[in-house]
Amino acid sequence: MELALAAIAQMVGGEVIGDPQKTVVGAAAFETAAPDQIALAGAPRYLKQIDGTRAGALMVPLKFEAAGRNLVRVGNPAAAFAHVLSVFHPLPRPAAGISPGAAIGGGFSVGLDPAIAPMVFIGENVTLGDRVAVYPGAFIGDGVFIGDDATIFPNVTIMRRCRIGRRVILNPGTVIGADGFGFAPEGERYRKIPHTGSVQIDDDCEIGALNTIDRATFGKTWIKQGVKTDNLVHIAHNVTIGENSVVVAQVGISGSTVIGRHAVLAGQAGIAGHLTLGDNVTVGPQAGVGKSIASGAVVSSGLPAMAHRTWLRVVREVPRLPELARRLADLEKRLKTLEEEK
Amino acid sequence: MELALAAIAQMVGGEVIGDPQKTVVGAAAFETAAPDQIALAGAPRYLKQIDGTRAGALMVPLKFEAAGRNLVRVGNPAAAFAHVLSVFHPLPRPAAGISPGAAIGGGFSVGLDPAIAPMVFIGENVTLGDRVAVYPGAFIGDGVFIGDDATIFPNVTIMRRCRIGRRVILNPGTVIGADGFGFAPEGERYRKIPHTGSVQIDDDCEIGALNTIDRATFGKTWIKQGVKTDNLVHIAHNVTIGENSVVVAQVGISGSTVIGRHAVLAGQAGIAGHLTLGDNVTVGPQAGVGKSIASGAVVSSGLPAMAHRTWLRVVREVPRLPELARRLADLEKRLKTLEEEK
Amino acid sequence: MELALAAIAQMVGGEVIGDPQKTVVGAAAFETAAPDQIALAGAPRYLKQIDGTRAGALMVPLKFEAAGRNLVRVGNPAAAFAHVLSVFHPLPRPAAGISPGAAIGGGFSVGLDPAIAPMVFIGENVTLGDRVAVYPGAFIGDGVFIGDDATIFPNVTIMRRCRIGRRVILNPGTVIGADGFGFAPEGERYRKIPHTGSVQIDDDCEIGALNTIDRATFGKTWIKQGVKTDNLVHIAHNVTIGENSVVVAQVGISGSTVIGRHAVLAGQAGIAGHLTLGDNVTVGPQAGVGKSIASGAVVSSGLPAMAHRTWLRVVREVPRLPELARRLADLEKRLKTLEEEK
Repeated sequence: MELALAAIAQMVGGEVIGDPQKTVVGAAAFETAAPDQIALAGAPRYLKQIDGTRAGALMVPLKFEAAGRNLVRVGNPAAAFAHVLSVFHPLPRPAAGISPGAAIGGGFSVGLDPAIAPMVFIGENVTLGDRVAVYPGAFIGDGVFIGDDATIFPNVTIMRRCRIGRRVILNPGTVIGADGFGFAPEGERYRKIPHTGSVQIDDDCEIGALNTIDRATFGKTWIKQGVKTDNLVHIAHNVTIGENSVVVAQVGISGSTVIGRHAVLAGQAGIAGHLTLGDNVTVGPQAGVGKSIASGAVVSSGLPAMAHRTWLRVVREVPRLPELARRLADLEKRLKTLEEEK
Repeated sequence: MELALAAIAQMVGGEVIGDPQKTVVGAAAFETAAPDQIALAGAPRYLKQIDGTRAGALMVPLKFEAAGRNLVRVGNPAAAFAHVLSVFHPLPRPAAGISPGAAIGGGFSVGLDPAIAPMVFIGENVTLGDRVAVYPGAFIGDGVFIGDDATIFPNVTIMRRCRIGRRVILNPGTVIGADGFGFAPEGERYRKIPHTGSVQIDDDCEIGALNTIDRATFGKTWIKQGVKTDNLVHIAHNVTIGENSVVVAQVGISGSTVIGRHAVLAGQAGIAGHLTLGDNVTVGPQAGVGKSIASGAVVSSGLPAMAHRTWLRVVREVPRLPELARRLADLEKRLKTLEEEK
Repeated sequence: MELALAAIAQMVGGEVIGDPQKTVVGAAAFETAAPDQIALAGAPRYLKQIDGTRAGALMVPLKFEAAGRNLVRVGNPAAAFAHVLSVFHPLPRPAAGISPGAAIGGGFSVGLDPAIAPMVFIGENVTLGDRVAVYPGAFIGDGVFIGDDATIFPNVTIMRRCRIGRRVILNPGTVIGADGFGFAPEGERYRKIPHTGSVQIDDDCEIGALNTIDRATFGKTWIKQGVKTDNLVHIAHNVTIGENSVVVAQVGISGSTVIGRHAVLAGQAGIAGHLTLGDNVTVGPQAGVGKSIASGAVVSSGLPAMAHRTWLRVVREVPRLPELARRLADLEKRLKTLEEEK
């Protein structure tokens, strides 16, 4: 594929500085781009060393100038460059059509231009929108609905009656709609609580590889529009995550917690159950969140790494902290007495 | 399905207050149940607002009264309600029979009423009990034994010679019996230690989605009766977990550790290797357990989340804690001297 | 299989003390080995209780003596014993040949003695070396290369153009080459950044079960020779891990971080992005690493578990640490004044 800078500028709402007829055949990294490729120079550190790239064209911020270079100037160079990359590298799809090697149940409804690979299992009464791509090893349970332009990568499991929105991407190995972790104690034993609900993932979400998003006890576990999760994320039954929130790798969210829109949960954070996290909340890496968080708040926890020898001495003192505090208060009182007696 | 309250009461060992001939067609949540459904009102907060539900019948504790309502009174309403739910919502199964689309090795022994889906792989000399359900994408290795009424969900892997008990549920994507993480150092390199043992999961266990339970170096990794694990749990080689213990999501248990019965390991906790945790132990979320724990003990670790600004100041002080303690002791000595000289 | 001690000694570069014609039919644990098996007695605790085993032969350190026992003395008994174990228990393989139940794309190149199971999907232009074993449920994307003697266990996903070295083992359910977690903000929304790079795993690596190793944005995510990862490990886009490093279960490594050779990252540690960890670094369990680490350093973080009652009091004091430090400094000043005024 070959694109003229004029076409690229139109696509991203930018303007060409230099030769609008200049064509590029790909998009690449700043350091390695060739003269027939476009690269991103969005951040100051790239703009300062603009001579350090052989790229034939550069996606740059508005007003940036570089004599003799072909530039596409745009308000949000990073997003514009991602856009161009997606034109050169569209999401891969299995071969067009419905493979005879797929096993498909009764009551199947499928839209235009499906790409269903062999070794796909589709249960009863499944509905797929237009241009849905399903890779080998995917399991799609009874009554599942998948919207237009969704991509289901290999070895994904979607259990019965879950609902997947348009343009959703489910990365390999992810499990949607397994039963939530709910048991009723009966003496020392636990009796399984059947999970009659489902999972709904709204449009434009991308769910990472090897995620688990459990079905609700009743009602639904709900991932709202535009949410992005990284790999190995656990989302328990009846959780709701608001629009455009970001959940980084290995985060765990316990049951019935509600998270607002545009939140960021950093890697390995753990969120207890039945909490409310507001909009635009930021949770630091490895944080253990045991209380609800107001909108806009930034919370952290966990110790950053230190030399192991330091750590050994620190952790000996940590359990003595309350005693330290008590001794300090005692000293303050006694010193005050001495000072007053002077 | 329609059930009279009299039948429900008999099933759960309860008594009907109101109309024993009243029938319900389902069980639902307190807030959303319809007049032809039964709901759970086990906890005081529901009992106090009993008029807040439209449910046609309620599962309630013994002695609870509510004039004009149909009640099923029982000693353990939550467990009784789970029981009723499981009658209305039995665990789903693939189509009855053995699909011709399954690949089945020699020496296969299978009990009554199997439900083996297409795209299931079963190795040599596998034995399945009665009514075993195996979903698409499951791999069952050579010599595996699976007991009556077990359910193997999609894309589960069970490696050679592992033993799965009766009524066990393996949720999607879980891996049973991969080699443990054992290597012998040889200079800077590591030589793989073959794992000749296996994994045994006893009756009535439920293993969550995307768990890894590694096979033993020698002998067996052993999950005893009634253990329940949540999603993304890691259980290393040669671990033993006692009866009816509960392992919450993303917990990791290192090699050769032995955990007693009826323990609770909360989410994201990490347990070091070669430890002994007694019966009825509780480990808090994100706790790092480096020492054995006596029966009945409750241990915790990790900092709860705090405002990020506070956290930034706190973590600067933490490595100075030993110095703080030393300075405090010095102050105490000097102050004592002053006080005595008075 | 039957092996004479003389043959075993030759295999591991050791010497026989006792009867070199004595044969063993297997290798087993010290405590359970039978008279026709060899066991390992490498560590002092075993050497001290050498009469506690019925093993017919023992792999022991150089110079160790035990009258009347058949010994194989060797410099590194643990590695030698692992070697012997691997002879008695070679890595299992699917049935020889290419199953007609595998789906194989065009441009397929395969070496000698493949073992490709049914229900394997192989895309276009895939190259496999000699003796590659691929288990059911594995997905091998377009343009993937897999070296000689590699083993791909069930339900593994290898996305397009990734490169797997010789003798590599990918344990069940692992996902190699899913897109990295990269998005360009566009207002509140996020635009997906296509990932045009790949993953390269060099010779002799073993990747645990249910790992995720993401493909690079540009270039490659690179796991160098001899790296071993445990289960449920996450390795983000553009990470490099040096030769013979060890990554324990549930570790997460964020994007673009570079780790040196022969490092050890203990369980559940989290490493932030864009860091450099040197050679021979050791990171403690559950550590949160936010800064680069020099070669040879040992770092830790996280609190070890303590009684929950202690913990409740400790965590109340932790956020007050900066205030405690300030009050301590104030006391020191005031006490000094008093002392000088005496």
